[in-house]
Amino acid sequence: MIFPKRGFASDNNAGVHPDILKAISDANHGHTIAYGDDPITEQAKQKFKDLFGQQTSVYFVFLGTGANVLSLKALTDSYHAVICADTAHINVDECSAPEKFTGCKLITIPSSNGKITVEAVQKHLHGFDFEHHAQPKVISITQTTELGTLYTPKEIKALADLAHQHNMYLHVDGARIANAAVTLGISFKEMITDTGVDVLSFGGTKNGLMYGEAIVFLKPGLDKNFKYMRKQGMQLASKMRYISAQFLAYLDQEIWKSNAANANCMAKLLHKELSGIKGVTITQEVQANGVFAIIPKDIISTLQKEFFFYVWDENKNEVRWMTSWDTQEEDIKLFTSLLKQLVH
Amino acid sequence: MIFPKRGFASDNNAGVHPDILKAISDANHGHTIAYGDDPITEQAKQKFKDLFGQQTSVYFVFLGTGANVLSLKALTDSYHAVICADTAHINVDECSAPEKFTGCKLITIPSSNGKITVEAVQKHLHGFDFEHHAQPKVISITQTTELGTLYTPKEIKALADLAHQHNMYLHVDGARIANAAVTLGISFKEMITDTGVDVLSFGGTKNGLMYGEAIVFLKPGLDKNFKYMRKQGMQLASKMRYISAQFLAYLDQEIWKSNAANANCMAKLLHKELSGIKGVTITQEVQANGVFAIIPKDIISTLQKEFFFYVWDENKNEVRWMTSWDTQEEDIKLFTSLLKQLVH
Amino acid sequence: MIFPKRGFASDNNAGVHPDILKAISDANHGHTIAYGDDPITEQAKQKFKDLFGQQTSVYFVFLGTGANVLSLKALTDSYHAVICADTAHINVDECSAPEKFTGCKLITIPSSNGKITVEAVQKHLHGFDFEHHAQPKVISITQTTELGTLYTPKEIKALADLAHQHNMYLHVDGARIANAAVTLGISFKEMITDTGVDVLSFGGTKNGLMYGEAIVFLKPGLDKNFKYMRKQGMQLASKMRYISAQFLAYLDQEIWKSNAANANCMAKLLHKELSGIKGVTITQEVQANGVFAIIPKDIISTLQKEFFFYVWDENKNEVRWMTSWDTQEEDIKLFTSLLKQLVH
Amino acid sequence: MIFPKRGFASDNNAGVHPDILKAISDANHGHTIAYGDDPITEQAKQKFKDLFGQQTSVYFVFLGTGANVLSLKALTDSYHAVICADTAHINVDECSAPEKFTGCKLITIPSSNGKITVEAVQKHLHGFDFEHHAQPKVISITQTTELGTLYTPKEIKALADLAHQHNMYLHVDGARIANAAVTLGISFKEMITDTGVDVLSFGGTKNGLMYGEAIVFLKPGLDKNFKYMRKQGMQLASKMRYISAQFLAYLDQEIWKSNAANANCMAKLLHKELSGIKGVTITQEVQANGVFAIIPKDIISTLQKEFFFYVWDENKNEVRWMTSWDTQEEDIKLFTSLLKQLVH
Repeated sequence: MIFPKRGFASDNNAGVHPDILKAISDANHGHTIAYGDDPITEQAKQKFKDLFGQQTSVYFVFLGTGANVLSLKALTDSYHAVICADTAHINVDECSAPEKFTGCKLITIPSSNGKITVEAVQKHLHGFDFEHHAQPKVISITQTTELGTLYTPKEIKALADLAHQHNMYLHVDGARIANAAVTLGISFKEMITDTGVDVLSFGGTKNGLMYGEAIVFLKPGLDKNFKYMRKQGMQLASKMRYISAQFLAYLDQEIWKSNAANANCMAKLLHKELSGIKGVTITQEVQANGVFAIIPKDIISTLQKEFFFYVWDENKNEVRWMTSWDTQEEDIKLFTSLLKQLVH
Repeated sequence: MIFPKRGFASDNNAGVHPDILKAISDANHGHTIAYGDDPITEQAKQKFKDLFGQQTSVYFVFLGTGANVLSLKALTDSYHAVICADTAHINVDECSAPEKFTGCKLITIPSSNGKITVEAVQKHLHGFDFEHHAQPKVISITQTTELGTLYTPKEIKALADLAHQHNMYLHVDGARIANAAVTLGISFKEMITDTGVDVLSFGGTKNGLMYGEAIVFLKPGLDKNFKYMRKQGMQLASKMRYISAQFLAYLDQEIWKSNAANANCMAKLLHKELSGIKGVTITQEVQANGVFAIIPKDIISTLQKEFFFYVWDENKNEVRWMTSWDTQEEDIKLFTSLLKQLVH
Repeated sequence: MIFPKRGFASDNNAGVHPDILKAISDANHGHTIAYGDDPITEQAKQKFKDLFGQQTSVYFVFLGTGANVLSLKALTDSYHAVICADTAHINVDECSAPEKFTGCKLITIPSSNGKITVEAVQKHLHGFDFEHHAQPKVISITQTTELGTLYTPKEIKALADLAHQHNMYLHVDGARIANAAVTLGISFKEMITDTGVDVLSFGGTKNGLMYGEAIVFLKPGLDKNFKYMRKQGMQLASKMRYISAQFLAYLDQEIWKSNAANANCMAKLLHKELSGIKGVTITQEVQANGVFAIIPKDIISTLQKEFFFYVWDENKNEVRWMTSWDTQEEDIKLFTSLLKQLVH
Repeated sequence: MIFPKRGFASDNNAGVHPDILKAISDANHGHTIAYGDDPITEQAKQKFKDLFGQQTSVYFVFLGTGANVLSLKALTDSYHAVICADTAHINVDECSAPEKFTGCKLITIPSSNGKITVEAVQKHLHGFDFEHHAQPKVISITQTTELGTLYTPKEIKALADLAHQHNMYLHVDGARIANAAVTLGISFKEMITDTGVDVLSFGGTKNGLMYGEAIVFLKPGLDKNFKYMRKQGMQLASKMRYISAQFLAYLDQEIWKSNAANANCMAKLLHKELSGIKGVTITQEVQANGVFAIIPKDIISTLQKEFFFYVWDENKNEVRWMTSWDTQEEDIKLFTSLLKQLVH
């Protein structure tokens, strides 16, 4: 078998880190109680508490959409509204799963860099107590954003404060939270717990896990009755030890950090290599593992044949390149050298 | 580390078959397109077509509840009703996930052995075209049932015919379908396709997979727009190759058969060993990998301490023992010898 | 125009009591604030408080299904279950509206007379705290039942006590509650508030109103955020004064009592007239305004042509006759005389 | 009793036209089959066919939210998206009822005058066949808009054509459609059927009815199974004759036209009277029965005390004045004279 080439289409296209696979294999002995009442799950949950604070409660689910939708379900009733960027994964990439499962309205804020501001959110904070109006209840942000940018702790805190002033919650879609932590050089606790975030979708799959995400409730009480929601939301794994084993290794061995560090570093390298190329315009700040660029239209399909990637905006010839935990310098060199060749 | 003891609590408590784990590991090379557009998924889907017929279409999901709920969603609109046994997993073990996601009513038929009959279903086939009445649209059966019994192909065909006579569908929850195929000694095609089943939830997790189930549409057209339902239903795996790799090995190497054969065989052995014991009454026919028995109340907790299992009916002191793909003769001997000792 | 004949098909087939129509007409002056912030609505709500207790809160909706579904929504989250008779209107006559809007499972208890007992409910009070199981949260009964029978206050209290012992609620579908109050000879407060009922769907349409039902929360706090549920449930009337005016007259002038008294009295008369007729078997106790009887199959269609009514159970030739607020002795005489003639 | 003063807060605050009330009263004789199988409903439905075309099918519901939500439900499955103006009633005034009942996403287009254009919609017509993306299926416009403006038939046709080119539908929220017909001076058929609209929410309550709206399917087949949706959507009236009688009179006697003509005329008069007033700026074209204006902040509350109305935009001191079927010249004179007095 010829191993498929590494590309820049998506961090979801990368495989599983070998140490994660090993952790799965190590967990594969004998019988344990299903559905999470096993010692590996217990340890993995404790690991989250160690990182985010002892008041934290954690629930594992299968995938990112599950983590986001169930986080919102835990914080809302059906007549609530969730405020997010128009570029948010919950808005554009989840096929209306949030609306269907929660009944809530998504109020979207136009965003050019994937981020939303206190000022922009404030414009939608009206109609409280007015029964004709879906009641704003959650602000949801993505860290790092779908555009490869990130929020500073100060920005997160400002949004959390705004939410709490209005009896609302702040949810963070952390599908790529490890990449943010590496760039910011701070702990998860400093970024999330200390800024006042209420619920976090803690991603793993895009950063070297096989499957599995974690919903992290940062404050006591927010997970009341949540176990029923997870089950009803079709996210309760029977053989949960295999998700837990992944997270335990991921956190305990700091795989999250080395994987994200590599991906971020490769994105920076890609950015650097692209800088001098005429006809290539970087469109977003490169703060994590995504690089967005406008390139000549006529080279796109040829380039895609060698290194598949997605066109982000057809009208502008803007493309997206994602680096992964397994991207190597050689990949960047081959890719940019081909690109340079095509441009000239 | 001390390996946990094998018990009889649930086939979900067992681990992953080594050859399945190897298949996962073998798939862990390089990048592939996420969300199912990869060659392993293509092969796994083709394998299902080979076994069930070329007109079949297959969609992988994460878990059994997802497979059942999305099968029903594909066959219904919200004003429909689904007829099933009161013992059905969709009725008692899925926390109202079918109702929430589909909007449909579940019409339950009292069942002492987990099965429903044409006669019992017929009593509910009325109110068609009457808008006050949720319209019966699906008959859903479990093979093998939650009580360890099974339907003959003839019985399945009779229910399929009944469904089709009323413009309805037959769904099979096949969480333990491999066990049925082994006992009946027939192919999946003979049991499912040839009897007229419309949609099958094809289970793997309870029989040696790590995670992953398959929704098998047996007839063209039934999966129209289903890809959106799977995504919205939070069941579209990003790194799908790891589910597909499991199913490919499971079917290609007939792991399904050897695993189920072992579980069934061990259940038979357990049944046999229990036969002579005074005070122990087997309550269901042993046709797959479950043994149900009434035992003396005073021995239950002591027995559970050594070999954990669930009490099925508190009022009757009826317990459930499940065998697994990894149950060994030695487990049965140790367990029944302890049981005998406690009874005397 | 020839006025259509009064029949026994349904109390929904009767028109509007003249004094109700007058109240509507009297309310039709000038402008009032829409959506319920008007003085007539205020008075009507106060009238309910006077009858049920000052702690009561009342919300008007358009129809009985709306009253039932929103009552259940107020008491549940989506992972809950509602226990009711298999004959309950919420189970057989609302096209799965409760399941769709609340997400909850309906657990049905077989009932031959429309009533459920403490013993029968108790069998379903298990699986608490077990996330696989939809959590029982509401017992819902109908007063008077769909079979024309009724619960004594003692029976209601026993069910309320049972519910409260399990942290559950008792809901009463009172589409025909006036008929029960008249038969029992007690006040609404004695029947509902004093027995511990939590929420009541208070019907009006079947007893002489044009449209409109009331949801009566008997205990403070149960209606928290309910105004949003009513709006989202498509039950908030813009010109609400016309519903309120009906209820104000209905309660203030005791139209509920005189209307129900007439209907009940006519049912009793019908019962009496039928008693002597050979081949006619009354199948349910006549406690309100419904009479159920098995009659010779061959006379059904001829009888229906003159006085339309519904066959309740095709297999048994059991029919349902409902009397109304406007049924007159003459109607009974004509009908029973025709029936006698046909039987002989 | 002192008759409340007519104001400009909402056309929902006005009462019922006397001829509508008379029609209700005239319908109040004897028994008719409930739930719409009565001759009045038959006639009312035929009247709609006469006006919109014989291929039309019509379903009565209780209220505007019900009409809108069920129209969308008929046209969508849960993974679809509906494109509308951000000012649309379905987006801002229905408490997320569309999302909850249909599961669909609402994609909103910023609009300053309540209208959307082909160009603006086109930007959202992408992601077809991509399962991560809620699939655009309906364009929904309001005629006349929430801002008192209207679409020309040509504009409607352009949006209908655009929808049909993408296998989508055009829905019109016609809560105030009569006002548009009067201004445009064309028939309903010319405005709706001939332009290619698929489904229309035909409003009545805001223009002199007591309650009741009609869902008009303009093309055969679109109402397939719709009767179940209406029932499940809690919009099937038992005593339907009283809705039907209103619509029959409304259409047959052209009450829709005279009522809307008066409201429109009074809005024009109000506009004219305001024109000369310094400090008052009209912010929207006055094409129907709404007048939007920026007025001095300090006079708002005093003015509201005499003639209650709503502030549309707090930040801009923009207010909304609605005229009604019963607004009289005298009301305009009194109001504008007070306003003038306050301004000076």
